[in-house]
Amino acid sequence: MIYFEDLEIGATFSSDATYLVTEEEIVEFGRRWDPYVFHVDPEAASGTIFGGLVASSAHIFAIFVWFGHQFNEPTAAVSALGFNDLGWHSPVRPGDELHYRDTCTGKRLSKNRPGFGIVEFYSEIFNQENDLVFSTLSSSLIQCRPETE
Amino acid sequence: MIYFEDLEIGATFSSDATYLVTEEEIVEFGRRWDPYVFHVDPEAASGTIFGGLVASSAHIFAIFVWFGHQFNEPTAAVSALGFNDLGWHSPVRPGDELHYRDTCTGKRLSKNRPGFGIVEFYSEIFNQENDLVFSTLSSSLIQCRPETE
Repeated sequence: MIYFEDLEIGATFSSDATYLVTEEEIVEFGRRWDPYVFHVDPEAASGTIFGGLVASSAHIFAIFVWFGHQFNEPTAAVSALGFNDLGWHSPVRPGDELHYRDTCTGKRLSKNRPGFGIVEFYSEIFNQENDLVFSTLSSSLIQCRPETE
Repeated sequence: MIYFEDLEIGATFSSDATYLVTEEEIVEFGRRWDPYVFHVDPEAASGTIFGGLVASSAHIFAIFVWFGHQFNEPTAAVSALGFNDLGWHSPVRPGDELHYRDTCTGKRLSKNRPGFGIVEFYSEIFNQENDLVFSTLSSSLIQCRPETE
């Protein structure tokens, strides 16, 4: 388990995990949460500004959260506190295989919650061409290492 | 259809739609995208900082995107461009019934895409007690009204 004390500012974290985005999942997620034609209808999508089916911003955000669970050693994270500068850059299309990198950009002990710290990460998702598809700055509440007696 | 020209800075938008969050959906979404115990296991969740099952941040973000589709008159939105100041405030628990409000906080014509504008919204989700559960500032690419001849 990675605790607050283990996270060094400037350190980067990536995992071997990749995420293959299928047309089926883009359409399924789009129908449930974000039914624009460019998320749910491959034919109609070809006539839109995207020129084809693309994944919903909410779908990519869910993949971003999923990536946070793919590290070999889990982080003792309790809660996402906030996100800033969320950007969707290159569109995510069916067949794209995504990968992920986190950079620790800041940390401080929590004033309100003894035994917890607040850690800032810059997170990036790339596709198989290494085009940036999503990035955000986030802060998370992370446990300090439990004291052993 | 609501076009760029129809959106006035300061105007607020809400719909009659509410979103009932069920335990089943919290667990289903959590298992798929964000399998922390406080999203997937009601019993184990009671021993965590949340004191019970709570919805994933990605789940609440998907509900936020869903709310954008619940207005009587659709907006000619093409794409979310970016989000800032995303905050998850009160936890969302099973049985919570959520509602939504958008405030237009800025607008300008797109320099790169003639016929489109960029509109900024402050968006808020509240629960049945009117506690704020989520808020964000976002910008969207929105079509200008097509010229009629």
